Amino acid sequence: MSSAISPLAPTDVPEMPAIAGVRLATAAAGIRYKGRTDVLLAVMDKGTAVAGVFTQSKCPSAPVEWCRAKLGGGEARALVVNSGNANAFTGKTGRQATALTASIAAKAAGCRPNEVFLASTGVIGEPLDATKFDGVLATLAEQASPGEWMGAAKAIMTTDTFPKVATATVKLGKAKVVINGMAKGSGMIMPDMATMLAFVFTDAPITAGALQSLLKSGVVDTFNAVTVDGDTSTSDTLLAFATGTAAAHGAPKISRPGDPRLKAFTKAFQAVLADLAEQVARDGEGARKLVEIIVEGAVSKPSARKIAMSVANSPLVKTAIAGEDANWGRVVMAVGKAGEPANRDKLSIAFNGIRVAKSGARDPSYDEAQVSSAMKNPKIQIKISLGLGKGRDRVLTCDLTKEYIAINGDYRS
Amino acid sequence: MSSAISPLAPTDVPEMPAIAGVRLATAAAGIRYKGRTDVLLAVMDKGTAVAGVFTQSKCPSAPVEWCRAKLGGGEARALVVNSGNANAFTGKTGRQATALTASIAAKAAGCRPNEVFLASTGVIGEPLDATKFDGVLATLAEQASPGEWMGAAKAIMTTDTFPKVATATVKLGKAKVVINGMAKGSGMIMPDMATMLAFVFTDAPITAGALQSLLKSGVVDTFNAVTVDGDTSTSDTLLAFATGTAAAHGAPKISRPGDPRLKAFTKAFQAVLADLAEQVARDGEGARKLVEIIVEGAVSKPSARKIAMSVANSPLVKTAIAGEDANWGRVVMAVGKAGEPANRDKLSIAFNGIRVAKSGARDPSYDEAQVSSAMKNPKIQIKISLGLGKGRDRVLTCDLTKEYIAINGDYRS
Repeated sequence: MSSAISPLAPTDVPEMPAIAGVRLATAAAGIRYKGRTDVLLAVMDKGTAVAGVFTQSKCPSAPVEWCRAKLGGGEARALVVNSGNANAFTGKTGRQATALTASIAAKAAGCRPNEVFLASTGVIGEPLDATKFDGVLATLAEQASPGEWMGAAKAIMTTDTFPKVATATVKLGKAKVVINGMAKGSGMIMPDMATMLAFVFTDAPITAGALQSLLKSGVVDTFNAVTVDGDTSTSDTLLAFATGTAAAHGAPKISRPGDPRLKAFTKAFQAVLADLAEQVARDGEGARKLVEIIVEGAVSKPSARKIAMSVANSPLVKTAIAGEDANWGRVVMAVGKAGEPANRDKLSIAFNGIRVAKSGARDPSYDEAQVSSAMKNPKIQIKISLGLGKGRDRVLTCDLTKEYIAINGDYRS
Repeated sequence: MSSAISPLAPTDVPEMPAIAGVRLATAAAGIRYKGRTDVLLAVMDKGTAVAGVFTQSKCPSAPVEWCRAKLGGGEARALVVNSGNANAFTGKTGRQATALTASIAAKAAGCRPNEVFLASTGVIGEPLDATKFDGVLATLAEQASPGEWMGAAKAIMTTDTFPKVATATVKLGKAKVVINGMAKGSGMIMPDMATMLAFVFTDAPITAGALQSLLKSGVVDTFNAVTVDGDTSTSDTLLAFATGTAAAHGAPKISRPGDPRLKAFTKAFQAVLADLAEQVARDGEGARKLVEIIVEGAVSKPSARKIAMSVANSPLVKTAIAGEDANWGRVVMAVGKAGEPANRDKLSIAFNGIRVAKSGARDPSYDEAQVSSAMKNPKIQIKISLGLGKGRDRVLTCDLTKEYIAINGDYRS
């Protein structure tokens, strides 16, 4: 496993403010890794609303099934996340492990097991020994503090090369509310969902139903518009928690997602999701280039999304970008294989603003040297104009390098 | 570009018999490569029936459009194949290049341009200078000989590390007939079609209609069941030519694909396609392992195909195999993301006959050392038993290695 930090890691890491009603603590429980933290406990105040979206995999992990089943209650008091073992494809043992973890956490946090949410990431198919949480979670509940955001983001990492956090402060009514998020990648990154694990916390007083709506619409152009390798994890989980503690200093209680008072909040919430999703692409396994695919002029937005994903997931496009080669022929190939309406003779393609193909042929003004120089940029934008309609979409991905192979050829051994 | 021959190359290369009515010749026309042949001319006798199947890309190459338009005529007298330039996404210039090539070839072979079939492979988006064929094709028509099969298979190569040929001799009625085939890969390999270019010739007297039916059903479990990288070329072409010359020594004329006299021929024809398709997988870019994915117990054959393809195209599964890691957790992931019916608790997975997962969990008798040793084999079989129904399918692929990245990161530059 590589330990070098991705060259695409953000240079500015935000200060994460406290969120009233949320306390965090981490520990090294020895799940799999040595010498690093691998368990996160987040304890939330009574009355915290919860919402979640999960992997579309037909073989979801035990924690995903646990969360789905408990979401109906609408309340959360604790979140337990471990790295190193995904507790996926672990059968009955896996279900027993989630139940045991929740019961240990419930005792530690002083709540019911149904109010405990779980996420696990790491190797699939290995039994998770939940007895390792015994004692650990009780200690963590005692130690938990409002400032432990970076520590939390670190404890949930697997092949990630940097912790991923984002924050926003925004007005809800006349009160300031905070939104904090953390995420981890960085393989098996493909809708739906894009990231393996992401957690967003706010002190805004929002009901579980409204929060669920916000989350569902929020992922469409953020986490679901990011792909690293087209692989969908069994464990993808995005949970949002709203403690409602900002009501104490005047934030209005929101129960409808369409509530006009929620406008600024919705925008900030989306921005936090988008920030985290982009960081996942920036930390794609072996990534050396952040790649933005813009498709415009498609017959519809879903059609533009399909074409953009076809380009973003093409190994030939991704290896060309790794080689700093503006190989637009491979982009044409990927547009063609998407199966969506596309007319070769109307197609234009630009790399970082330089048009290389136009109306079904090479752009006559195409300058190889100029394009080659642009391809050295760590951020590559591929803009594909189909000239058919008004459908537009954007997805983020990264290049495909030898490092991806190295990371994934040696991961389990 | 790597010049080392794939370790998966067949050790037995068949002697290719002559086919009456087919003559072949190759030349170095300087399309792109230096010091190697890059043009193939095949000249066929009058009365040769032709059939073809092509890429499903929405942006097909000019030669694909040419062939599709001419297939209705049912007759072929010449085939021109060039490597180094795909004549794809070349707009009007590309269409002019195909017309010019066909007219030069028609003059050389003494036929009408409508009886000339074309295929090009190589870089996309570069104009193909068809004037380079002027003179060359006339010389080739004179030189063409019945024994030039290996030379032909070499001339159509791009990143292939070995020429791909297959042959079968079979009885049609009381007469012996021959089927010869050649193919090239080896990137952008994904249904439909699997290979970029493949050509099959026979002296059997089969009408164009019957040949087309044979071809259409023949590709389903051969070329369409092979994937290297999930990318679909703009140029994928499989053409079949039947000279009918075996009628002279008593072979019956076949005009219906269901004709019972065609049974042995159909089987042999399928075997030639299967052999070529497997060679394409064996020469997948950077391949070190041939991977066979068998899915059984699915709800249907199409469902089994989708699941098998999801596994075969998963970068995480392919890199694990490159690392000789029986990472069945990633297989579960790929089954889960296929979107087809699958019940985790009924799923079993075996690598090279060793069951590693059973009924939703690790097989209790699983022996890591035994599996690790099996993973060193250059051929890896992954068998996935879903336990739901009787749907079964099989696809071939290869592993994903650093060499794939090297080949595709440097291809154009």
